[in-house]
This record gives sequence, structure tokens and C-alpha cells, in this order.
Amino acid sequence: MKILLINGPNLNLLGTREPDKYGSTTLADIETCLFKQAQKSGFEFESFQSNHEGEIIDKIHSAKGEYSGIIINAGGLTHTSVSLRDAISSVNIPTVEVHMTNIHAREDFRHTSFISGVAIAQVVGFGADSYKYALDGLMSYLSK
Amino acid sequence: MKILLINGPNLNLLGTREPDKYGSTTLADIETCLFKQAQKSGFEFESFQSNHEGEIIDKIHSAKGEYSGIIINAGGLTHTSVSLRDAISSVNIPTVEVHMTNIHAREDFRHTSFISGVAIAQVVGFGADSYKYALDGLMSYLSK
Amino acid sequence: MKILLINGPNLNLLGTREPDKYGSTTLADIETCLFKQAQKSGFEFESFQSNHEGEIIDKIHSAKGEYSGIIINAGGLTHTSVSLRDAISSVNIPTVEVHMTNIHAREDFRHTSFISGVAIAQVVGFGADSYKYALDGLMSYLSK
Amino acid sequence: MKILLINGPNLNLLGTREPDKYGSTTLADIETCLFKQAQKSGFEFESFQSNHEGEIIDKIHSAKGEYSGIIINAGGLTHTSVSLRDAISSVNIPTVEVHMTNIHAREDFRHTSFISGVAIAQVVGFGADSYKYALDGLMSYLSK
Amino acid sequence: MKILLINGPNLNLLGTREPDKYGSTTLADIETCLFKQAQKSGFEFESFQSNHEGEIIDKIHSAKGEYSGIIINAGGLTHTSVSLRDAISSVNIPTVEVHMTNIHAREDFRHTSFISGVAIAQVVGFGADSYKYALDGLMSYLSK
Amino acid sequence: MKILLINGPNLNLLGTREPDKYGSTTLADIETCLFKQAQKSGFEFESFQSNHEGEIIDKIHSAKGEYSGIIINAGGLTHTSVSLRDAISSVNIPTVEVHMTNIHAREDFRHTSFISGVAIAQVVGFGADSYKYALDGLMSYLSK
Amino acid sequence: MKILLINGPNLNLLGTREPDKYGSTTLADIETCLFKQAQKSGFEFESFQSNHEGEIIDKIHSAKGEYSGIIINAGGLTHTSVSLRDAISSVNIPTVEVHMTNIHAREDFRHTSFISGVAIAQVVGFGADSYKYALDGLMSYLSK
Amino acid sequence: MKILLINGPNLNLLGTREPDKYGSTTLADIETCLFKQAQKSGFEFESFQSNHEGEIIDKIHSAKGEYSGIIINAGGLTHTSVSLRDAISSVNIPTVEVHMTNIHAREDFRHTSFISGVAIAQVVGFGADSYKYALDGLMSYLSK
Amino acid sequence: MKILLINGPNLNLLGTREPDKYGSTTLADIETCLFKQAQKSGFEFESFQSNHEGEIIDKIHSAKGEYSGIIINAGGLTHTSVSLRDAISSVNIPTVEVHMTNIHAREDFRHTSFISGVAIAQVVGFGADSYKYALDGLMSYLSK
Amino acid sequence: MKILLINGPNLNLLGTREPDKYGSTTLADIETCLFKQAQKSGFEFESFQSNHEGEIIDKIHSAKGEYSGIIINAGGLTHTSVSLRDAISSVNIPTVEVHMTNIHAREDFRHTSFISGVAIAQVVGFGADSYKYALDGLMSYLSK
Amino acid sequence: MKILLINGPNLNLLGTREPDKYGSTTLADIETCLFKQAQKSGFEFESFQSNHEGEIIDKIHSAKGEYSGIIINAGGLTHTSVSLRDAISSVNIPTVEVHMTNIHAREDFRHTSFISGVAIAQVVGFGADSYKYALDGLMSYLSK
Amino acid sequence: MKILLINGPNLNLLGTREPDKYGSTTLADIETCLFKQAQKSGFEFESFQSNHEGEIIDKIHSAKGEYSGIIINAGGLTHTSVSLRDAISSVNIPTVEVHMTNIHAREDFRHTSFISGVAIAQVVGFGADSYKYALDGLMSYLSK
Repeated sequence: MKILLINGPNLNLLGTREPDKYGSTTLADIETCLFKQAQKSGFEFESFQSNHEGEIIDKIHSAKGEYSGIIINAGGLTHTSVSLRDAISSVNIPTVEVHMTNIHAREDFRHTSFISGVAIAQVVGFGADSYKYALDGLMSYLSK
Repeated sequence: MKILLINGPNLNLLGTREPDKYGSTTLADIETCLFKQAQKSGFEFESFQSNHEGEIIDKIHSAKGEYSGIIINAGGLTHTSVSLRDAISSVNIPTVEVHMTNIHAREDFRHTSFISGVAIAQVVGFGADSYKYALDGLMSYLSK
Repeated sequence: MKILLINGPNLNLLGTREPDKYGSTTLADIETCLFKQAQKSGFEFESFQSNHEGEIIDKIHSAKGEYSGIIINAGGLTHTSVSLRDAISSVNIPTVEVHMTNIHAREDFRHTSFISGVAIAQVVGFGADSYKYALDGLMSYLSK
Repeated sequence: MKILLINGPNLNLLGTREPDKYGSTTLADIETCLFKQAQKSGFEFESFQSNHEGEIIDKIHSAKGEYSGIIINAGGLTHTSVSLRDAISSVNIPTVEVHMTNIHAREDFRHTSFISGVAIAQVVGFGADSYKYALDGLMSYLSK
Repeated sequence: MKILLINGPNLNLLGTREPDKYGSTTLADIETCLFKQAQKSGFEFESFQSNHEGEIIDKIHSAKGEYSGIIINAGGLTHTSVSLRDAISSVNIPTVEVHMTNIHAREDFRHTSFISGVAIAQVVGFGADSYKYALDGLMSYLSK
Repeated sequence: MKILLINGPNLNLLGTREPDKYGSTTLADIETCLFKQAQKSGFEFESFQSNHEGEIIDKIHSAKGEYSGIIINAGGLTHTSVSLRDAISSVNIPTVEVHMTNIHAREDFRHTSFISGVAIAQVVGFGADSYKYALDGLMSYLSK
Repeated sequence: MKILLINGPNLNLLGTREPDKYGSTTLADIETCLFKQAQKSGFEFESFQSNHEGEIIDKIHSAKGEYSGIIINAGGLTHTSVSLRDAISSVNIPTVEVHMTNIHAREDFRHTSFISGVAIAQVVGFGADSYKYALDGLMSYLSK
Repeated sequence: MKILLINGPNLNLLGTREPDKYGSTTLADIETCLFKQAQKSGFEFESFQSNHEGEIIDKIHSAKGEYSGIIINAGGLTHTSVSLRDAISSVNIPTVEVHMTNIHAREDFRHTSFISGVAIAQVVGFGADSYKYALDGLMSYLSK
Repeated sequence: MKILLINGPNLNLLGTREPDKYGSTTLADIETCLFKQAQKSGFEFESFQSNHEGEIIDKIHSAKGEYSGIIINAGGLTHTSVSLRDAISSVNIPTVEVHMTNIHAREDFRHTSFISGVAIAQVVGFGADSYKYALDGLMSYLSK
Repeated sequence: MKILLINGPNLNLLGTREPDKYGSTTLADIETCLFKQAQKSGFEFESFQSNHEGEIIDKIHSAKGEYSGIIINAGGLTHTSVSLRDAISSVNIPTVEVHMTNIHAREDFRHTSFISGVAIAQVVGFGADSYKYALDGLMSYLSK
Repeated sequence: MKILLINGPNLNLLGTREPDKYGSTTLADIETCLFKQAQKSGFEFESFQSNHEGEIIDKIHSAKGEYSGIIINAGGLTHTSVSLRDAISSVNIPTVEVHMTNIHAREDFRHTSFISGVAIAQVVGFGADSYKYALDGLMSYLSK
Repeated sequence: MKILLINGPNLNLLGTREPDKYGSTTLADIETCLFKQAQKSGFEFESFQSNHEGEIIDKIHSAKGEYSGIIINAGGLTHTSVSLRDAISSVNIPTVEVHMTNIHAREDFRHTSFISGVAIAQVVGFGADSYKYALDGLMSYLSK
């Protein structure tokens, strides 16, 4: 079984962008960690990042039949993209939503998520570790 | 006179995605049908699909001077893209909006459309046949 | 199989009311056209207009068992009548909603419809032709 | 003392409309039951049903001086008719509101009632029995 | 020139309904007064009352070509009837809106009016005299 | 079969609190009446009152397996307690909601109820008699 | 008995400001007309205009004991001044609100009025004649 | 270091309540699991459940100085209790919020949380495993 | 005459909780101060604190006949408890609401209070002194 | 140290305006009382009243450097004046907001205050005594 | 051609009020700068500041026929004054709106402007330089 | 120092699209003008246009370390793109927002901007000159 990690707009800047808020761990660090974590549990793993909504949708489409699960941090698209939500619900692959910060602690437009409605679970607020628990939970879900 | 059919994000999956809701007709099937229907009435016809908002806008821009009418199912962008709305109003080509399901029967965020404000007409709820009536109506409109 | 066309308040004035917005086609013209169109496809056809919500509801009730499909332009009742909505859902006859203008291009109270929630499809913005596509789509739906 | 039972739009279909939701009891059944129930307690009783808002208002007006109490299930008019509300408050006759289903369990436009503001009491959710308790409560109220 | 006075639901009860709020003047009193007032200024005058939205719409339709102006107190329909609003705008006859009480002093659903948007003027709060000023203003308007 | 009557915060003051609004009947009076009414129909009956949300939830939990039906007037918790709603839906016992006054005649925060969504029926506005009809309706429901 | 006419901000420009919307009648014209109209009915009359909220409030205060009625067109303050509203309700002098255009036909912030809540009546939409009916109505009110 | 697990109203019913939605794992099962998981990492662990808001607040207060971290599933209080939110922010102990289902996939009142604003992280949707990741994340957070 | 001071959830932590916001004065300090202040004016005084909504309601009920006035800082219950509001209005004892910080300077959910509607007065923003003025004002009120 | 008392629009009418709501104490009475109260505590005191927003702003500007604290009852400007709010925050002088009635007990536009956001404290509902506590609290605040 | 610079409430304090937010440039500095800038381009220039809405309206009225353009920073009146908006639209002089800070970056009541709707352009966020660009843009606009 | 000009969707059509609203100046004209204006002040300058949100985000990312300031007209993305907002705030480069028309004069969805919250300033309504002032202001800002 193979798992796909998708990171959306601006997450390529992780480790450089507002480090006091997001820490100094880079996206590459996270991808490497998750690769090893997946491997250890006998899962294949691939990661993908793009600042283009369209490329992410294309990637999700191509995931059908190839991947058993998706982990996604859609960045700013979380709050605006109905198309991304549709893509996830179209391919019907179990998906876990991740955010490094606790978006629900905010009182502005950022506390709503179009992804939530089609995700099985969500982990927020543990920084880079949010990804770790998302992967663990997804593998556990897929193993059942 | 030439007509352009535009399908937005996730509509490339037609026939495979939630077939109980959208039927098993593929996008290629629809495009072929409309091609013949247009030809029979003496219209040229071209179709275009993309999951990228930017590509759809580029396509609409390039339509200026080349196409007399546009039929569009903007998928998830229907509810979120002001840029797409602006593109249509910029090129000033008569445009008909199409949806396979009756989006107005929904009570969530999906019943609003940024496209409607710049479209001349809208057909929803007839499944793949929605496209047929949109084309017929558009050709009739252009023939006047 | 028999189809019932219902037109609500003020639609008896078609052709005389704001002709620049609704054209000069009268309701009788439309009814005659649809009668022929239905006949050609082997369907029976009857039309009904009233400015009285109650009469329209009575008519819909009496349609049960006699008609296979309904086409309705409920006029101003579109935006206000829960009773009409209930009537349609009570008799459980496939119903298509029609409007001559693109009501979704408006930004006031007129863009919401109580009929949509119980209709299978909707055609708006093609002027008198909206009825034609509604009938065609309904006959096609009933033939399946 | 005489009591008037009023049923609004679509309630004439009771027993035929969505029987899984409203049961197979017809309106005639209910009217007969209530007639007997009223008679047993020494009350006169009359019932009236119409799909026409205007006729119901006329009926309420004519009730003045003749009836001591009203039981009303205004159907879809419950949520839309200010005129009906005005009629009830105009004649100043104690009125009890009835609904067969628990309209307050819904989260849409149907949980608001223009009738409530001028009714002394309301019974919802007991199916046909809702009427029984409304009548009992009203007779008890009038006997005080 | 001929003027039509229309009174909507419950206004037939004037003089009997909540006299402390609406006074003891009956609708017949008002109609007689206005008849004389119109006559004195050389206008013909007719009055009409109905509790049926449909009948009022029918009456307005029939006014076309026969009446030069309309005075309307739509009662409870003021706040709910898009069809009535459409009827007035369809026949394109100058219309003045009247209410006996100052509806704008209220803070509930009663302070909005669908009639206002298609009326040339509005008089509220002078009790039965509201009609008098409406007629005077309308005659003055028509004489210009 | 056994029925549980639950009264929430402040209902212990019945008969002493705002008697012009709620009458002089005490909660003990109501409980005695209902006890007799239940007994007459062959039902067991127990009543419980608390001003503590937690105690009411505990009571509802303990009702599982012991009671066949619940009658509840949740007092002020009606409008604020999601936990109480969850408790009722957790034990899955048919529940009827009661209020002595017609809460739907109010235009403030008091016209919404978290209990309604999980109750089978609701009786409001008959004063102490509201309880009587709720019990009758519940026993009737359980006997089917 | 003496009547005070108050005109608020920008009404000094009447006749020069947007004449297609407000006509070419000046404020002096209106004041002269009303002066004569009042005189003819045996009323004294004085008029006051200011662009200063504070001066208008001062004027209203000084009206106490000296004037029997007030006619006010508060201009832009209509929609924003709670202080003006308080001033009117403080002196407890019967007040009629006037607007030359039909403010209720607008769908923006201009259809709400803080004055309405403390006025006995309102006339809108008759241009300069709105003042005439307001004065007539007010004199009639005061004569009772 | 010692960690406190708090479960709010109705969570004592876990395993018995709507097992198709929440699984058959009981709260005791979860508590045992977490106890072992904590122990393995060298953390002390205690669990607490109550249906009483007040008892939970008391428990949180007493946690000050004794516990290094809190895991909380506040049940229905999640959406209504400002007092609970205040309690957590008062004691200033790192807190992780847990829900077994994905509350963000809901579109009703249940998608808002008063706890989120004072929690460092949140895990939802993994069923009983949500607790596991919450504990792991909290221990990892405390070890830094 | 006897006065009851009630403090709600989390106020037992006063002096320890966020001292930069609430100061280091403890609740005991405040209670002692008020006791002396009351005594000096010849009033009896008692104080009560609880984190349990139910206990506070019980206390208020028991106050009837024993206390002449209540001072309450309901903490987080201020913004959520309809039951507490009902309790105060049930016992009909003059009540003054207190908050140490200026809750009206906030722009979130904390600026609404269910207590205000049934309190005679409110003091906010003076820190511990808020209580002093509340007591002084209440004693002055009771002495009249 | 010197304290400035500011009273806004209509407060000059105190004692004459709606005495059943505001009492018969005049503004002069209040000013005299506060003058003595300030003097007794060794504070200078000056009072100012105006119905003109601009004059109040001018006064506040001139207070800079001369006054150590401000007490303000902004009357109707409380709910509408951003400029007044800006003036207070510009001069950076500790300000206490006062209202004679409990404005928070109201459910209309009057329960919001633009002043609150820049005031240190607020006293409402004690009638003329509200001023007394405001002054006492302000002097106490300034003495720290 | 002559240009009028208007500054509203509190802007006289520029340079002294919250200098970290608005800089230390005084209003006189700005006026001198703009005077020179205008002179250099052959424009006459005058500046006006007032804390009184009424005076600003008077000034705008007097500008008619004398000034060719207006630059306005209405301060707090920006968000509340319909009268000011009316004054600008009455005199029909091209007007540019200025704010020193970026008001659109705020999420409260300050991001709406009644001036915008009648201004030709707006410059915000450049501190004192905002005025410079406004003047330059206005002169350029007038020169066309 | 180097400045980057970014134009979003549909701005490539400038000069051809709705010339009565946007003028006949092309984007190339604007870019040339700004290039010269920047050069004259000793700044380097580069311009970029794309209809693809993703490409604009990529461009902004690549600007880090290379550009000292950004001028952006995000077109339709202004009102919808959280990702673009995040990109700007991620690279932490001073950014000025530009619009050719006065977007704040509109009353629809177009008056909100996600860019404003992370921009230092905004210029709207001067047509092509809006860019000129934005550049001037930005260079001035960077020179400090």
C-alpha cells in the first residue's frame, strides 16, 4: 500500500517562513521523516508540493488506483478551494487533513476548511509532528 | 460561427466519479455528442478541459475574435472564482452556464455561482443532456 | 404520457409586460409551441395559468395519476411559496423549473427559489426557449 | 360553544402523501375523530380545509361571533403568511397551532412559524394525535 | 381619469379589529370619503378589497388601460408577496402605498415592504387620513 | 412500562415564580397528577427535578433499560445544553418535550431548543396541562 | 398652536442639488408654501435648517412648550443619529417624518430610519408635496 | 511528569452509545490504553470523567501544580462552555483537544469549539486512536 | 437587611489567575472587604462561590425571603447560562452584575451577558473595586 | 489633579425628560454633587455638557495636559460616534463611561457602545448614583 | 483651478496623537507641503480642519463654484456620516479620499467608508505621503 | 534596490477590456512608464503578469532576497486568494496594493480584499496613474 503526502501553496517555504510560528524544520525534513516512518510500517510513500491548485488536483486524480491514502496540508487553499474538495471526494481515497498550527484557535476566516468535509480525520497544532500523527493514524486506518 | 465548450476542475473524471450521481457518460462522450450537434446546425465546435483556473482564463482570452459563444461548466470554480467571472466579462462573448445536477436544490455553499452574473442563461439538472440544451439554446441565440 | 405546463402569477401578461426584457411572445404562443413539440414526440400536453396560489396547488393535486411530468414557471411565487413547494413534493411527479430571464444573475431576493429544492432540473435565461428545453428535457427524462 | 378546525394547503392529501412520514390516516378520519371527541365534551365542531390562503382568511373572519376556539394546521402557510397571522389576531379567538411532525427538529426554513406569535399553544410531532391533544387542550382552556 | 383603491387581507375588518390601534372608521367610511374627494377633483374612483392575493393581482391586471393610478394598502401581503409587486410593475400604473399605522416604527418583520420598491410614494401613520393624502398626492401627480 | 418525568432548572419554583405567567400549580401538583394519569393507563411513573445539568444527564443515563419513555421540560437548559441533547440521543429512549408557555411566540433567544432535534414531539402553551398531553401522547406512542 | 419645520444636512441645497432627482423647488419655496398653508388653517409656523446635528438638537429642545408639532426631514442624519431620535422623544412633541424621495424603494443603508421609531407618521416620495401632506396631517392630528 | 485525561458529558457511555458511529471501545478501554502508553514513555497518568461541568472545572483547578499536561474531550460542553475554556486558560497547563469523530465535517452548531482557543493542538476523526495521538503529541511537547 | 455575594466559575482562582489582568487580590480579600463595608452600613453580608451552575441556582433559590439583594459575578456563565438568568428573575431580588475587567471593550463572544437583562445595574472595569461600588450602589438602592 | 465630567446630547434635559425612567435629579444637581465629592477627596472638578459632537471633541482635545481623568456619558453618541472614540484614545486620559439606565438590559441598537472600547471602566443602571461611583472609581484609579 | 483639503475630527492632533502609529508630522506640515506642491503645478490650494461634522458640510457646500477638487480625510466620520457623503455628492466636485494608515488591513468597523462611494479615488497607508499622492492624482485628473 | 510589479488575472487585457471603464492604456504602456519612473529614481524594475495563481505565488517566493518591494494588482484573486496573501506575508517584502478603479465604491463582493491585510498601502481609482503613485510611495518607503 502506498501513501501520498500533498502540501499546498507556500509550504515549500517551511523552515524559512515565520520560523517563530512554524519552527525551522523544512518540508524536506518532514518528507524524509514520513518516508522512514511509512517504510518502517511497510508502506510506500511519496510526497508532492505545489503552489498551483490545478497541479494538486491533477496529482489527486492520478492518485486513483495507485495510492491507498492521502495526507494533505492544503495551505491557503484549505479555506477557499471547492475544486480541491471535489477532487478528493471524486477519487474516493481516505484522506487525512493536517495543519501545523491550531487553525481552530483563530477567530477569522482561517478557521473554516473546505477539506474537512471530505476528510476522515484532522490533526492540527503539533507543528511538524502533526504530519507524523496523521500518517500513523492513516496507516492504522488502512490496516483495518 | 464557432462555439467553445469549457469544462473545469474534476470534470475530466465524468463517468468514473460518483456514477450514481453523475451517470456513466464520459466527458469524451459529451464532447462527441455536442460536436455532432453543432455540426448538424452548421456551427464549428471545440472543447477544452482543465483543472487549472489559469489555463481556463488563458483559453477564454484566446477565444476573443475566434469564438462566437461559450458553454461552461466551471466545476468547483463556479462557487469561488472571481477571476473566471472577470475573464468571461472581459472577452464579451455570449456564455451559457451548465451543471449536470440541480445545484439550486442544495442548501449549502454550492448554490451560489460567480458565473451566473455574467452568463446569458443556465441549464442545470438534466445530467449530460444539460449540455445539449445549452448548446441548442446558444446556437439559437447566436442565430438571431 | 401527459405533461402539464403551469404558469404562475403575472405570466398571463407575457408579451405585453416589459417586452424589452421578456420579448413579445405571448403565453398563448408558448403554449401552442409546446403543445406541438409534445405532440411530435408522442406526448399529450395541457397548460394552465393562474394568479392564485391556491388554484395552482389544486391543479397540482389533481395532476396526480393523470400527468407524468410538470413544467412550472411559478413567477413571483417562486421566491415565497412553501405551500407550492409542498404541493409538488406531495404528488411526487417529476417537475422542471423554468424562468425566461437568468434569475441567478440578480443579486436581490429573486435569486432564491423554493421550487428548486423539489425540481429535477431548471432552465433559465433563454426567454421563451427556456420552456422548449424544459419540455425536451422532461420528455427525455420520462422516456428513460 | 363551537370549535373550528382549519387545515391549510396540501393537508387534503393526508394519508396519500408520504405515508411513511405522515401515516395513512386521512384528513376525513381526523375530522371524524375530532367531531366525536368534541361532541363527547359537549362542544360543537366544524372542519374546513383549503389550499387558498384567501379562503382560509375569509373563513377565520366569518368565525367571529360564531366560534369560541380555532385549531389550525396552516401547512406551508405556517412559514410564510403574515396575512393569516393578522386574520387570527384580528378576530381574537383563542387558537391552537398543530403540526403532525416535529417541525422544531428541522434545521431549515420550516422551523419558524408566523402562527405561533398569535396562538395560545402548540402541539407537534404526535402525528394525527397532535390534533386530539390540541382539541382537548383548547376545550379545557375554553371551559375555564 | 380613474383611480383604483385596493385594500388587501383583513382590511375589510377595519373599525372592528383592534379599534384602539386602528380607530373605529370602517373601510366603507374610507371608501366613501375617497370617492367624494376624487369626484371633487374631477377624478373617477373605484374601490376593491379582497383577502385573496390572486384576486388582487387579477384586479391590478384588469386595471391596465382603465385606471390612471392605484392606491394600495396590501395588508399582510405587503411583507410577503413578490407576485403582487410584480403585478404592479407589470401594468406600469403609478401606485401609492398606504398604511394606517407607522410600520417603520416597528422593529420586527413588518418594517419591510415588497410594495415600496415599485411605488412612487408612501404615506403611513395618519390612520384613515393616510388614504386621503395618498389620494391627494396621486391626483396631483397625475395632473402634472 | 415506566415513564420518567424530568424537570430542569427553576421548575422547582413552579407555583411561586411569576404566578401570573405560570399559574399557581406547584411541581408537586403536576407530578401527582401525572402519576395518577400514568397509573390509570397501566404505566409506572417517576419524576425527577434538578437545577444541575450534570445530575439530569446522569439521570437520563441511568434511565436506559429501566424507562420506556421520557417527558422533559429542560427549563433554561432547553436553549443552551448540547450535552443534554447528546444524553437523550445516547440512551435512545422516546422523549417528549414540554413547555408551559408558548415559547414559539417569543422573538428572542428563547425560541430555539436543543432538545427539539432529538424529541419525538413537543407540547407548549397549555400551562400545567402541557404535561398531561405530553404524557398521554407518549403513552399512546409507546402502546403502538 | 405653532408648528416647527426642521430640515437637516444638505437640504439647504434643494433646487440646486441633483434637480432630476429632487426637482427645482428650493427650500425657501417649500417654507413659504407651508407658512401659507399653516396660516390658512390658523396655525403659526416657523422653519429651521441646519447642517449641524447639535444645532438641530438644541432647536428641538427649545421647541418644548413653544411648539405643538414638528415636521422633520433629517437628511443624512435620518440613518445615523440616535441623539436626534432621543431629542425628539425627550421633548415629547408630535413629530411627522418627511422625505422627498421614496427611501423605502432603495435597497441600501438608506432604508432604515432612526426617526421613524419616535415619529407618529411618515410621508415619502411626493417630492416637495411630501411636506404639504405632512403639515396637513399634523394639523389634523393636533386639532383632534 | 503527570498527565490528566478528562472526558466530559456522555463519554462514559462510549462503546454503548451509537456504536456504528463511535465504535465499541469503552472509555475504560481507552483509559487503560493511554495509561500503558504514558507509562511506557515514563509519564504518570490519571483519567477523569464527569457529566458535570462544575466537577470538570474543579478537577482542572486542582490540576494546577500536580499535572504537566491535559487531554480533554469535553463532549457537548465543547460547543457551549465558556467557563471550561476559562478554567483551562486559568491554570495555564498545556492542553490537547480530542474528538473521536471529525467534528469539522459537520455543518451545524457542532463545528465550533470554545476549547480550541485555549488548546495547543487538536486531533479529530481517528475514533479511539484520536486519544493515542493526542497523548503522544502532548508527551512529545512536554519533553521539549 | 442581608446581601448575598455570588461568584461563579474560576473566580476562586482570583489572585493566582493571570495576575497581570486581574491583579493579586484574592477572592477572600474581596469577601472580607465587602463584609466590613456592608457591616459599616448596617447590612448583613454573606458570600458564596461555586464552579457549578446548579449550585449557584440552588443558592439563589434559597436566597428568597432571606436576602434583600444580590451581587453577582457569574464568570463564564455570564455569557452562556439562561438558567441562571431565570433563577435571578424567579426570586425577584434586586441584583447587581459585576465584572473586574471592562467586558464591553472586547469584540468577541464575551461582550454579551445573559445576566444584564435581569440586573438593575452593572459595574465593570475597576478590578476588585468593581465589587465595592456594586455593594455601595445596591445598599443605596435598598435603602430607598 | 483635575477631573472632567462630560455629558453628551440631551443630558441637559435630565430631570425633565421621562422622569419615570431617569428620575427628577437635574444635571446641575449631579454636577454639584460630583464637585463636592471630588473636592472632599482633594480633586479639582469641572463639568461640561453639549449637544454637539464637535464641541465635545474639542473639549476632550483641550483636556490634554490639564485633566487627569474623564467621566463621560455620551448620550446618543455612545452608539454612533467613532470620532468621539478616537478623541478619547487620542488624548490618552483615563476615562470612565457612565449611563444612568442599564443599557445592557436592552436588546436593540442601544446595547453597543463605541466608548467602551477606549474606557477603563463602566457603571450603568444606578441612576444619578452611577456618576458617583464612576467618580469614586476614577479617583481611586488615579491615586494608585 | 483651486483645490480644497479637508481634514475631519482629531486630525488636528496629528504629530501628537499616537506618534508610533501616525508619525510626528503635524497637520500644519502636511498643509504647507501640499500648498507648495499645488503651487508648483499652478493650482491654488486651501486647507480646512474641523472636529464638527456640520462645519465640514458647510465648507463643502461653500466649495461649489469656487473649488475644482477636494481631498478629504474625514477621520472617524468616514465610517459614520451619511450627511458628509451626501454633501460631497451634492456639490458634485471630484473628491479623493485619504487615510494615513491602511484602514483596509483592519478587521473591525473601521474598514467601511461612507466616503468611498462618492469619491473618485482613494490612497491609504503611506502616512503623510498619502496626501501627496492624492493631490498629485487629483491635479492630474483635473488637468485632463 | 529592485522592485517587482505583479499583475494578476485578466490584466493582460488592459486597454482592450471594457475601455470605458479601464481606459485604453495597455499593460505594456504601464510597465514601460513604471520602468522609466523607477530608473529615474535609481531603482531597478521588473514586471510580471499571469492569469495563474500558482505562478504568481512562485514568482513572489522567488522575489525573496532579490527584490526590495512589490506592487501588486491581483485582479480577481484580490477577493478570493488566501494563498496569495500567505505568499506575500511569507516573503516579508513591503507590498503596495493597486487597483485602477475605486473598488470601495462598489457594494458587492468586490469591496473586500485579502491582499489589504498584508499590504503596507493601497492606491485605488486613479486608472493607470494608480500604479504611478504606488511606485512613488513604495520607493519613498524603501528610501527611508
